[in-house]
Amino acid sequence: MNVIGRKRWAIPEGYIPSESSFSDRALISHETACILNANDHDAHVALTIFFADREAVGPYRIEVPARRTLHLRFNDLNDPQPIPRDTDYASVFESDVPIIVQHTRLDSRRAEVALLSTVAYAEG
Amino acid sequence: MNVIGRKRWAIPEGYIPSESSFSDRALISHETACILNANDHDAHVALTIFFADREAVGPYRIEVPARRTLHLRFNDLNDPQPIPRDTDYASVFESDVPIIVQHTRLDSRRAEVALLSTVAYAEG
Amino acid sequence: MNVIGRKRWAIPEGYIPSESSFSDRALISHETACILNANDHDAHVALTIFFADREAVGPYRIEVPARRTLHLRFNDLNDPQPIPRDTDYASVFESDVPIIVQHTRLDSRRAEVALLSTVAYAEG
Amino acid sequence: MNVIGRKRWAIPEGYIPSESSFSDRALISHETACILNANDHDAHVALTIFFADREAVGPYRIEVPARRTLHLRFNDLNDPQPIPRDTDYASVFESDVPIIVQHTRLDSRRAEVALLSTVAYAEG
Repeated sequence: MNVIGRKRWAIPEGYIPSESSFSDRALISHETACILNANDHDAHVALTIFFADREAVGPYRIEVPARRTLHLRFNDLNDPQPIPRDTDYASVFESDVPIIVQHTRLDSRRAEVALLSTVAYAEG
Repeated sequence: MNVIGRKRWAIPEGYIPSESSFSDRALISHETACILNANDHDAHVALTIFFADREAVGPYRIEVPARRTLHLRFNDLNDPQPIPRDTDYASVFESDVPIIVQHTRLDSRRAEVALLSTVAYAEG
Repeated sequence: MNVIGRKRWAIPEGYIPSESSFSDRALISHETACILNANDHDAHVALTIFFADREAVGPYRIEVPARRTLHLRFNDLNDPQPIPRDTDYASVFESDVPIIVQHTRLDSRRAEVALLSTVAYAEG
Repeated sequence: MNVIGRKRWAIPEGYIPSESSFSDRALISHETACILNANDHDAHVALTIFFADREAVGPYRIEVPARRTLHLRFNDLNDPQPIPRDTDYASVFESDVPIIVQHTRLDSRRAEVALLSTVAYAEG
């Protein structure tokens, strides 16, 4: 397969609700960056998180092996620091090889599940 | 970080339901333009609102500081005039520096929450 | 405002549920193509509907005046023929001036509302 | 109609919930790639599925006739092997003629329906 993807991606929308109506991992309110590395080289990705009223945080270092997908939960990020809940944020991904990024949120604050998803903004 | 983004963005879908099943701000029916300015210069954005059967309104003047995100609620716009509820509209953003725009709606007319989101249409 | 948009748009996903839990127009299950014509000339759009197992139907003729938006419900199309319910379809829009198209579905088959939306695929 | 579309498409997000609150086909939890072939030649598509922690699987061979749409359910794929449920995956489509691909999921794990949709990432 030829190289597919772009090296820089942005997701302006970010918000992790602190509430969930369920306790199992699959149905807890969460926000995900689905990263596909369809190429033959591992991807080293630097993630920066932007906020409304304070300095950006990062880089978070992420590796996506060759020919693998990583569905990265923002909820799980800890280094350099966790993403605060109930807070507006945005994110930029910079990779050394082309990748594809899709943004998904599962919101279970109320008793049912709500979903959103969009392919992120790409450059490079 | 190198400059990332585009200067002109459009969101054809716009509709703020007047009904909500909840009264706290996070769960009231609302429509948002999530704007990311990942660059080192403040962004000055002119927003124009288009309707089905009357002249467009604007510009609404919005500033997004350097390296910040603004999750702008259309519900909160007042100058030059509020966005009418239960009315089809569309929007165009023109910025002096590159930004990225994502459109999200939370609809809580019924007892549960419904979400939609998409990266907006970009040019320039 | 300078001309913004593209002349050809495609929406591969199309499906109008025949069921609805509500009877008012805003909450009936429906599928919408939100069209923004931000330019100074009226847009004349030819819409073609594609199916899984029969010949395509069209053109449907749509006009979007200069500096207006039209949130076109596929449910309302009648000429040359209505869109069948509970049937997979897809659509292509060809306009004489640049427009922007966003696809939205409201699904109210069950007691709550589900939403999807995406900016369509653009060319030209 | 002139040729419209691209030859390579990617969907980083993939996840088929094993649970459903309904038993009729339309409301079972499912994931779909809506493919539009608006051109005058049949499309032969090779689909590859990527995982988080094992080698990619494929190609799955799909044909979309000229001027037809195929709303392909990942749930229905069997050759070379079914897509596992409750498992993160991603997909790449390679076609011999230009097509357009949109990704949709219907999630009915809880009593109501949740939807997501986005036009996939395109190249070529």
